[in-house]
Amino acid sequence: MSQIRIIEVKENILANNDQQAQKLRESLRQQHTFLLNLMSSPGSGKTTLILKTIELLRDKLRIGVMEADIDSAVDAEKIAAVGIPAIQLRTGGLCHLDCAMTSQGLAELGPEIFDLIIIENVGNLVCPAEFDTGAVKNAMILSVPEGDDKPLKYPLMFSTCDALLINKIDYLTIADFDIEAVKKRVYALNSKIKIFEVSAKTGQGMEAWCDWLYQEVLAWSEA
Amino acid sequence: MSQIRIIEVKENILANNDQQAQKLRESLRQQHTFLLNLMSSPGSGKTTLILKTIELLRDKLRIGVMEADIDSAVDAEKIAAVGIPAIQLRTGGLCHLDCAMTSQGLAELGPEIFDLIIIENVGNLVCPAEFDTGAVKNAMILSVPEGDDKPLKYPLMFSTCDALLINKIDYLTIADFDIEAVKKRVYALNSKIKIFEVSAKTGQGMEAWCDWLYQEVLAWSEA
Repeated sequence: MSQIRIIEVKENILANNDQQAQKLRESLRQQHTFLLNLMSSPGSGKTTLILKTIELLRDKLRIGVMEADIDSAVDAEKIAAVGIPAIQLRTGGLCHLDCAMTSQGLAELGPEIFDLIIIENVGNLVCPAEFDTGAVKNAMILSVPEGDDKPLKYPLMFSTCDALLINKIDYLTIADFDIEAVKKRVYALNSKIKIFEVSAKTGQGMEAWCDWLYQEVLAWSEA
Repeated sequence: MSQIRIIEVKENILANNDQQAQKLRESLRQQHTFLLNLMSSPGSGKTTLILKTIELLRDKLRIGVMEADIDSAVDAEKIAAVGIPAIQLRTGGLCHLDCAMTSQGLAELGPEIFDLIIIENVGNLVCPAEFDTGAVKNAMILSVPEGDDKPLKYPLMFSTCDALLINKIDYLTIADFDIEAVKKRVYALNSKIKIFEVSAKTGQGMEAWCDWLYQEVLAWSEA
């Protein structure tokens, strides 16, 4: 669809990504804009979860979305189709977003008119965990079909996030997935993480997640 | 388990990875050893698929396995538990294997005593596609719960592989997944790729995959 703005983002050539990310957060605070960085493996349900979050929060918050992908604009098209401002960040083969790339996207979107901007990061459980995008909070999805051993194998991602969404719980009937074992493994890495059990497809558990996110956005805008 | 050898592999500091990979293939040919590089997202079922492949081919081929992971040795333990030589390559945070890392693993395993060595690459649909490991053939798994849009979003991986295993077809009953659309998207990127529809868990479709792999191993050893 021609209305999707596609931004070919460029990697940060400066070494101080963390410092720039800190500056970006300060400027977002002045604009009362909350930036959420959502990460996961490919196919965990990031876009579906964003669409459901929009449905539940669009009457209360002004929401924008930045979709990062190596190629294609299919996700941004899905967001735009429900009438929410969305841009596609194309990383040109790169496996993650850094703060410079996020800033390029924000400049296009215009952060000041939004209460909440959601970044859908590149589908990857490894590299995105290493780069501070400047987001206020980091959330990740682990979907049930991926298996309950993922915290053992990708510990940095679980350590980095403020919230974990265990998605596709409607698959629990046919998957070998021990949800209590996952929680134990995740809390061992990160005792402060908030864990939500959801099915973005059926809507199950989505209100608790949206309540948490809404409270975080409010707290940020009042800080 | 203490019997698992864990190798902390180091990245190639030389620029000519492709050239080294070509050399590695030549030496594998002289040793009549076939090296298969298996890639996918986290949780697509790589380890389960390797275990089923071992079950079907262990009477005909001498098989070894190299498990690559950022952390943990859980996969190598599962392989060793069925009595197959396995080592764990720990990438120390790195999101892919290159040829130097593969070579370090092979040196530990001793390639000359195997007909088939399978690399389980780091769970990642992006970075592993960019690095030639020296494998004779590259295969990838796309699992049904990941969704049918993945060829649009991770085109390099689908372009690079000789074989695609569409795994977890036992999930087709509850997933929104158009298998014919996937095939069309994949063939548009890579007309020569072999596609197998399997469930590594139930065994469905695994014989066709193992027949293909067995023929490839034979052709390599006779070349």
